[in-house]
Amino acid sequence: MKQKLSIVKIGGNVLENEIELDQFLLNFSKLEEPKILVHGGGKLATKLAAKLGIKSKMTSGRRITDAKSLEVITMVYGGLTNKNIVAKLQALGTNAIGLSGADGNTVQAHKRAVKEIDFGFVGDIDGINSELIDILVEVKLTPVFCAITHNGKGQLLNTNADTIASELAIGMSHKYKTTLYYCFEKKGVLQDIENDDSVIIHIDTNNYNDLLGQNIISDGMLPKMQNCFHALQQNVDKVCIGNISMLETDSNLYTTITL
Amino acid sequence: MKQKLSIVKIGGNVLENEIELDQFLLNFSKLEEPKILVHGGGKLATKLAAKLGIKSKMTSGRRITDAKSLEVITMVYGGLTNKNIVAKLQALGTNAIGLSGADGNTVQAHKRAVKEIDFGFVGDIDGINSELIDILVEVKLTPVFCAITHNGKGQLLNTNADTIASELAIGMSHKYKTTLYYCFEKKGVLQDIENDDSVIIHIDTNNYNDLLGQNIISDGMLPKMQNCFHALQQNVDKVCIGNISMLETDSNLYTTITL
Repeated sequence: MKQKLSIVKIGGNVLENEIELDQFLLNFSKLEEPKILVHGGGKLATKLAAKLGIKSKMTSGRRITDAKSLEVITMVYGGLTNKNIVAKLQALGTNAIGLSGADGNTVQAHKRAVKEIDFGFVGDIDGINSELIDILVEVKLTPVFCAITHNGKGQLLNTNADTIASELAIGMSHKYKTTLYYCFEKKGVLQDIENDDSVIIHIDTNNYNDLLGQNIISDGMLPKMQNCFHALQQNVDKVCIGNISMLETDSNLYTTITL
Repeated sequence: MKQKLSIVKIGGNVLENEIELDQFLLNFSKLEEPKILVHGGGKLATKLAAKLGIKSKMTSGRRITDAKSLEVITMVYGGLTNKNIVAKLQALGTNAIGLSGADGNTVQAHKRAVKEIDFGFVGDIDGINSELIDILVEVKLTPVFCAITHNGKGQLLNTNADTIASELAIGMSHKYKTTLYYCFEKKGVLQDIENDDSVIIHIDTNNYNDLLGQNIISDGMLPKMQNCFHALQQNVDKVCIGNISMLETDSNLYTTITL
């Protein structure tokens, strides 16, 4: 039987609130090893860019990562956020190691092809160095990935953290029974967006189409769900969506997604 | 016989000039493995602090690392500089992995004790996790350290890059025959500070006192030299000081220091 591996992605809302972040890291540190953390950077990068007078470039309502924005992202995601999370996890007894996709060539990507929009230095993932990541977790390290990849030609690329998490889960599923946790501000996928406690406990291919038909899954949740099913179809064992309490052992109020 | 290990420290002057940095990284990538790179951040951090309106705090002529300065250092050294060096080395075929001392608990330190001056978040090194660093180099990774350590209690600390390099060399000398390279803007330790080519090719305990007596080694070079002899006394095989050409195979104009 395959060994279990947990891959946890935390969103910007958790990162921006130090009390939330500390509680999350405490819960994460108690999670059984092996495990991997993936984080974005949220509004911290936007705030730093504003302080430096770097304006967010938008085309057709989509954010563009120009060279200056990439520098800010590299400083905030790869530096400030990543190193502080690692130091805090070390204090909690978890032997964390911070990584971008360039480190150890762990996440290979290419600059997104220009169709209608040139997104700038945004990377779409080509592959995961699962062999090296496996070596790291085998020696009891806990990789902490920021949302930065590289193209192997010296260029760093801003990459969606949800996608990094799912590609890591897929890549590691050859050897491990992987659970992918998406940790955000809500308790799970909600039946009624107005009711924070209306968590749909279980979603699978059977009830997913019903939920779509009833417009219960829409807007921001739709790409997240597509990402989840993509991962499940490629051998990820299950995907869980919830808030920071999800990782507590007695927690049962969150959404679990299976095929 | 012990396997060789090279530990190379690059100074701020190399980092700040992209052409110099690229040439250095090309030379470094050709250096035989296993090898380790250590870098500071130089004036990039000072420039970013100035842009953000963070003033350098000085006490008795010594720079103080307050909380805001530490954030800037973490962004620049740990993020921008470290990740770009790693991406560039990957493009050159060197499987680099960027690390702060918090990552994998590789460099443990404590906040410098307050005597006359409180230096703020400045770390003095307690120990090196040579076991883990050895695991990394054994799987053909090339660690790239920035000048940040941690205290194991969640606090990152700004730490002198020369000292990190020498402590790494000392820590790895149990298993490896280590050479420590200090790469800076001059060709080596100079006999005549006005003559860039007056490199002293070899310094050892015999001629060191003569050089001190003649005031040939003074000012900024003195702590560097003390650092070198400290490393040599703790089993580092040799220390080399020179500019980026030092790593070229046909290079012979640089200073080698032995006991």
